[in-house]
Amino acid sequence: MFHEKFAEGIISAKQFNREDIEYILKKGKEMLSETNSNLLKGKILASLFFEPSTRTRLSFESAMYRLGGNVIGFHSEDVSSIMKGESIADTIRTVENYSDCIVMRHSLEGAARMASKFARVPIINAGSGSGEHPTQALLDLLTITEEFGSLDGLNIGLMGDLKYGRTVHSLSILLSYFDANVYFISPVELKMRNRDKDYLQQRRMNYKEITDYRKILDTLDILYMTRIQKERFIDLEEYEKVKGLYIFRQDDLANTKEKFRLLHPLPRITEISSDIDESEKAIYFKQTFYGIPMRKAILAELMKD
Amino acid sequence: MFHEKFAEGIISAKQFNREDIEYILKKGKEMLSETNSNLLKGKILASLFFEPSTRTRLSFESAMYRLGGNVIGFHSEDVSSIMKGESIADTIRTVENYSDCIVMRHSLEGAARMASKFARVPIINAGSGSGEHPTQALLDLLTITEEFGSLDGLNIGLMGDLKYGRTVHSLSILLSYFDANVYFISPVELKMRNRDKDYLQQRRMNYKEITDYRKILDTLDILYMTRIQKERFIDLEEYEKVKGLYIFRQDDLANTKEKFRLLHPLPRITEISSDIDESEKAIYFKQTFYGIPMRKAILAELMKD
Amino acid sequence: MFHEKFAEGIISAKQFNREDIEYILKKGKEMLSETNSNLLKGKILASLFFEPSTRTRLSFESAMYRLGGNVIGFHSEDVSSIMKGESIADTIRTVENYSDCIVMRHSLEGAARMASKFARVPIINAGSGSGEHPTQALLDLLTITEEFGSLDGLNIGLMGDLKYGRTVHSLSILLSYFDANVYFISPVELKMRNRDKDYLQQRRMNYKEITDYRKILDTLDILYMTRIQKERFIDLEEYEKVKGLYIFRQDDLANTKEKFRLLHPLPRITEISSDIDESEKAIYFKQTFYGIPMRKAILAELMKD
Repeated sequence: MFHEKFAEGIISAKQFNREDIEYILKKGKEMLSETNSNLLKGKILASLFFEPSTRTRLSFESAMYRLGGNVIGFHSEDVSSIMKGESIADTIRTVENYSDCIVMRHSLEGAARMASKFARVPIINAGSGSGEHPTQALLDLLTITEEFGSLDGLNIGLMGDLKYGRTVHSLSILLSYFDANVYFISPVELKMRNRDKDYLQQRRMNYKEITDYRKILDTLDILYMTRIQKERFIDLEEYEKVKGLYIFRQDDLANTKEKFRLLHPLPRITEISSDIDESEKAIYFKQTFYGIPMRKAILAELMKD
Repeated sequence: MFHEKFAEGIISAKQFNREDIEYILKKGKEMLSETNSNLLKGKILASLFFEPSTRTRLSFESAMYRLGGNVIGFHSEDVSSIMKGESIADTIRTVENYSDCIVMRHSLEGAARMASKFARVPIINAGSGSGEHPTQALLDLLTITEEFGSLDGLNIGLMGDLKYGRTVHSLSILLSYFDANVYFISPVELKMRNRDKDYLQQRRMNYKEITDYRKILDTLDILYMTRIQKERFIDLEEYEKVKGLYIFRQDDLANTKEKFRLLHPLPRITEISSDIDESEKAIYFKQTFYGIPMRKAILAELMKD
Repeated sequence: MFHEKFAEGIISAKQFNREDIEYILKKGKEMLSETNSNLLKGKILASLFFEPSTRTRLSFESAMYRLGGNVIGFHSEDVSSIMKGESIADTIRTVENYSDCIVMRHSLEGAARMASKFARVPIINAGSGSGEHPTQALLDLLTITEEFGSLDGLNIGLMGDLKYGRTVHSLSILLSYFDANVYFISPVELKMRNRDKDYLQQRRMNYKEITDYRKILDTLDILYMTRIQKERFIDLEEYEKVKGLYIFRQDDLANTKEKFRLLHPLPRITEISSDIDESEKAIYFKQTFYGIPMRKAILAELMKD
């Protein structure tokens, strides 16, 4: 049972097998037609954003309210002053007494995992440094399955910052359970890290690493673009070198299949030209729409009585 | 029908005609006796304050809760870091998927209008730079009609920063639909802008511009004071020159009619001496009280099914 | 009746007599078994944190939601910009129109008291500078009575920053109504202030001041530790001198009675070694758990119709 298997929460895409993924996607799909439930009436979600966020935080909060629940939390730019030097472990052991589930984002990769060791309530990892962002990956899959019917047999390009990009880390792990051809497209400086590739190789994932997306663009069903995240770079010179390398424009779009779809976890800065926003191939705003049913499903499962 | 006419939201006082104003004031008045409705149960208001605010934000949030709805949002002093360089258009196209209505404040005059072009949910302009603040003007009118019965035939002074003051811009537009004698009282540096006056002249509004309120104080029914807003000045020397020019005191109050009322959108700093707070002529706190029924009416109209 | 006596709110522990304390503790205990009430449905709590806070704020907000109510508020690190120079009195006279009760924290000792003079809704003092923090003291008492059955006859040490520590100020006042032996344990620089001791002497409280807790540790039933709060020191050299003076460790624990309990209002920094967290004598996280029923009881009483 999903509920029991994920009693500690959702920390990493590695917790999932194909059956789990299909189960939670089915639940996400069901939530598309669920309106104003009282499923989580009386429940409280603690939303702890140690790193700034708009869309993930608001998406979880909206999902929680749509299910009849309530939200407490913080989302400060100056968390250090809020915490007064307190450890994450202490924060978690306090907040678990105020809530039924904790969703958290932190700049440290191990933060959510560590929190789950201390908490009696489920922890949802809403982004752990450059590590993972599993619920984003789940909503991405919901978007893809709603658009294409199935995940198997698709040619999917993951492009941008594959080194520091937590969403592509989680997404590639989930995709390894499906029969998809995956291209990792990045400048050499931002290639997927070896430890991440080692894991995918163990899982016998079918992937190729390339630097020029134009070479394979006409074969792709999906291109998943990501922002080059300035805040992850220790060396800003490295950032300046790569920031403008990939910019998807109108002429790129012309070179794509009819059923081609362009995804992006957002925010996008300049990496997608805004003149293609109106194309039906550009579905990054629709993708945010799927965040609500997916997160409703996740919250409902984790807080089931 | 109000609901259809304002389907895109409330961006400017210029959207209203006399019938619209009277309709929404009537609805506001009705909300005075409405308690704990479930009118907006299951609905979500997104409250996006790109500029700091206490009273407007809390007033909308309270109104939403009083109607049974919920609120998500941000109100950061460091919005740039939250946005990570994202455009307003992208933020709106994301947040509209999480909510049923968006109330926003932004330092740019055109921000709310631009947002309304992108959103499928109604946008409420809660302050756009030095431009407008239409819901404040509506609550001001509700306050006046509750105190005086009618808007017609009143002598009304609008005083302070008429150049940058967004509340007086919206209020003067709404007043142009009524038979009121309006005095624009300001230092020459902070006179109403020509484009604003042009609009009011087209509307054949009956107004005079003066600098010394003492000359007409004994004829006024209403004096609407505003704060000189330091944050709007590009040149701080200009601010220093005008900041202490108008200070309403006990001896001013003595020179007013019995039915005279002093309004202020708040916050006030030094421009109204606190020793007159207890006078029944000073109704600026009562004015904040009318913010709740007025905003309940607005929210209920815009989110009507 | 508690409700009438505390109509202006809870500002200071000095408002309580033994009967009041016992009444509200009984109500707190009852809330332990109360789940998802609709007791405060339709009510709004305004949560105004002029000083940063996590646990107190989230605890009040969680309690309010558990009772079916809603919450508005601010908790900014940059309150000055939110306030735009507005006085606390004006903020309160505004926010009272948006809410049914106001909980506030402020760096000034007299802030909550001043607020209560202006507000028609009850004010809850959630920390006033180095002054008081009465609801923390009440939840501490609930914790103690749940652990020990009674407050009378206990040997209780209050240790750490007794000069600036607002929780110990409120707690010692409440304890003065019970037959407890109290030790004030602090470095000489952080002794209880004379004005606080004068009050306790008038109340004929049985207390001793000491500097070395080890001398009496084996006689204590309860040791209540507090953080040395860096933010209260004007002279940081004074802080450096005392910050590491008391660190409670495993070997201290070995010297305590079987029924000994260690409390701390949290956050703790280094003053309690984390290797004792798992001991059943260490109940500071359980203490945060009792914050919810205690605050539910307080909110329910103050907002009773």
